[in-house]
Amino acid sequence: MLLPDAAQTIVAPASPAGRGAVALVRLSGPDSIRIASSFLSPSSVSGAPKPRFPYLLRAEDDGRLIDRTVTVFYRAPASYTGEDMVEISCHGSPYIVSTLLRLAIAGGARQAGPGEFTLRAFLHGKLDLAQAEGINDLIISEGEAAHRAAITQVEGGISERIRKMRGTLVDLLSELEVRLDDSYGEMRPLDAPSFLGRARAAAAGMKAMADSFEKGRRAKHGVRITIAGAPNSGKSSLLNRLLGSRRAIVSPIAGTTRDTIEAKTELGGFSVIFTDTAGIGTAPKGTLEREGMRRSLKAIGSSDIVLWVIDGSRKGSAADRRVESVLKRRIPPGAEMIKICNKSDLPPGRDREETAACQSISCRTGSGLKALKVRLLAEEKGFFTAEASSIVTSARHYSALLEAHRELSGLERLAAAGGVLPMELAAEHLKGALAALAAILGETTSQDILNNVFRNFCVGK
Amino acid sequence: MLLPDAAQTIVAPASPAGRGAVALVRLSGPDSIRIASSFLSPSSVSGAPKPRFPYLLRAEDDGRLIDRTVTVFYRAPASYTGEDMVEISCHGSPYIVSTLLRLAIAGGARQAGPGEFTLRAFLHGKLDLAQAEGINDLIISEGEAAHRAAITQVEGGISERIRKMRGTLVDLLSELEVRLDDSYGEMRPLDAPSFLGRARAAAAGMKAMADSFEKGRRAKHGVRITIAGAPNSGKSSLLNRLLGSRRAIVSPIAGTTRDTIEAKTELGGFSVIFTDTAGIGTAPKGTLEREGMRRSLKAIGSSDIVLWVIDGSRKGSAADRRVESVLKRRIPPGAEMIKICNKSDLPPGRDREETAACQSISCRTGSGLKALKVRLLAEEKGFFTAEASSIVTSARHYSALLEAHRELSGLERLAAAGGVLPMELAAEHLKGALAALAAILGETTSQDILNNVFRNFCVGK
Repeated sequence: MLLPDAAQTIVAPASPAGRGAVALVRLSGPDSIRIASSFLSPSSVSGAPKPRFPYLLRAEDDGRLIDRTVTVFYRAPASYTGEDMVEISCHGSPYIVSTLLRLAIAGGARQAGPGEFTLRAFLHGKLDLAQAEGINDLIISEGEAAHRAAITQVEGGISERIRKMRGTLVDLLSELEVRLDDSYGEMRPLDAPSFLGRARAAAAGMKAMADSFEKGRRAKHGVRITIAGAPNSGKSSLLNRLLGSRRAIVSPIAGTTRDTIEAKTELGGFSVIFTDTAGIGTAPKGTLEREGMRRSLKAIGSSDIVLWVIDGSRKGSAADRRVESVLKRRIPPGAEMIKICNKSDLPPGRDREETAACQSISCRTGSGLKALKVRLLAEEKGFFTAEASSIVTSARHYSALLEAHRELSGLERLAAAGGVLPMELAAEHLKGALAALAAILGETTSQDILNNVFRNFCVGK
Repeated sequence: MLLPDAAQTIVAPASPAGRGAVALVRLSGPDSIRIASSFLSPSSVSGAPKPRFPYLLRAEDDGRLIDRTVTVFYRAPASYTGEDMVEISCHGSPYIVSTLLRLAIAGGARQAGPGEFTLRAFLHGKLDLAQAEGINDLIISEGEAAHRAAITQVEGGISERIRKMRGTLVDLLSELEVRLDDSYGEMRPLDAPSFLGRARAAAAGMKAMADSFEKGRRAKHGVRITIAGAPNSGKSSLLNRLLGSRRAIVSPIAGTTRDTIEAKTELGGFSVIFTDTAGIGTAPKGTLEREGMRRSLKAIGSSDIVLWVIDGSRKGSAADRRVESVLKRRIPPGAEMIKICNKSDLPPGRDREETAACQSISCRTGSGLKALKVRLLAEEKGFFTAEASSIVTSARHYSALLEAHRELSGLERLAAAGGVLPMELAAEHLKGALAALAAILGETTSQDILNNVFRNFCVGK
């Protein structure tokens, strides 16, 4: 796909699809005011409108009133896209919205592609690529943490840190280049230890920023929490307690949950995806149970947090030991495991030491649940309060930061080789790192990447 | 339910639910500006804002940026509701919208009920009840015809006709009342023939307007077209042809369609609900077929148009004759029946006279389909072009018009009794008719009726 033609005028609904009190239809591009004027009246107004002023205009189809609108005109470059724009507010009727689109298209506009308004804003320099990406994140954010990361990105929080890093690298690069250009040898020689020290500090900053991606990804897409354990330990009861609703069927019969059950919810500002699983650690009876266990293992393998539920009212069993060994093998690196001792309302059946590290709860009475919820997201929460301004939530940014970091490590290797620092090679590494940072801001970004970024946007943004 | 308290400030999203580029949150009521200012900054602006001017304001939750908004303030009575209002445009993110609602509610607003903004507009005299009802019709209108009727109603088309009728009745009533008050007998006696002639003309106008309800109801809720006939005549093929998609399974096996299939579409500006039915006219084999036929009959009994499909390539059968007699018994009064002779691509198997009144089609080749579509809605179309300004689409208006008409018929009966027109009784009838008309405009409407009208609105309108 090529980038869409910016000389064309585009149109799309900007409000969500469906019925409501109000809907918004947007045009952007050189002909947007002329096209809107072709179906808005009185044309005396729409012909030479005052910008950023709400006009009450009739939308008409061949003289037939379609709706009374509130229309605002914008003149380039003072608009969201940086182009001439028209925003038409009408009644939130799908029929009226589609009629306005038809009229705009008949007048010469083209239906906008996903994110095309924001793409144009980016191409006209109204925002950088990281900010543009943040706008989509902002729209899809489902909890406070994701929202906090997204709005920081829109406001330029990520971009500012990237620009600072770039500033450091540009300084370092120019120290090399003046010396490379210095054919008369008039410059002082490079202070290699200081040079490398500053490069190292920049690399550490990149690494720290890249490291926030794990948390950023969780905040954006939801923290995946899997509830696992031996049959009949109370996994489904725990799911229901955590959700506050009877999502899963609960019965005293071991093996009631046959398939994994996913439920998305918000917990303390975080979007969380709970997965309740079929019990593991016993020999499967039949293909159905075997498939259920296979799915349990798969869920465990893609978790951020695993809640290992044991029945505290019974003695530890062979099944429990097998569960433990399975979990240790299957849990992904970086994921946390919380051991939960359920049925605290019953007399304890286990040794003290076996339950010492456990979070004790009772799904029957609800005791311990509140403490568990707090513990679940304590780590995420601390992170988002302290580092909200620099959390990477985009895989694209993450890999660009790693790429920049890798280039700076190359610099380190050159130095470690001993002798005088080879300045041409060092400059190449710095240029590589600068290119990676520039890609985050969209300064050196290929069409493919732009297409990739914007195709996930909704139409109309 | 009592009418909600108008002294409270209400808040609701006005754009459709879901994700989009832009969403709109609305407040209305005496505290709306103060409440909005509690979370919009800089407060220097929001404290004493210029009305109808788009401000760029930050929405903040305890100092944390939630979104940058475009906010417009309105001062009573120059607003949609006639109250102080605030309209906040933000990113179309459900999280942001729900956060703004939370902040407004924390500031003292209450979540608006369905249609409560429009109810307030009505209570403040910004529009009459018929216009208010039209706004909901406008939002839910699904085709040109429904839209045309709705926007005419919003623009006051219905109200104007009702007010004219009322003017006539008020004139007539005052002719009676001056005479009833004329204790000295100074007035000329009533010119009864002229008086009754004018009352009769008014009654005829009401009747004509009420008669448009059948068409109005069809336009608003969709024209119900049922496809019926003997097994294997090609009913499902016709449904697919009319929809332009393979909605129903088609096979050469008689009885392929067991249950009725409903499909909604737009045809020539009209919303149409097609129902394909199981074949009738043969003895049902088993309970499944019996239930299928029962459902066919039910669909036929609630049709606006029945398409009776016969297989033109075969001789007329006993089944066809049974179908005809069933249809004649089941078709509701006022519904139209169109006999369709299918399989015109095959050599004809029927007598000329049997297919003379038929619309000839071939579902295989598509021939005749276009003519059928034109014929289907020809009557509706003519109606909507000619009478768009006075089509009654509301059952409430319909019954009020019938009520007014009934009162005027009472006047007629008084006259038919001979002798001098009893002016007191005649005046009572006129007052009854006037009350019915006033109810349409909402001038004498009970709380129950208002609740009924507005509870069908979406929240935020």
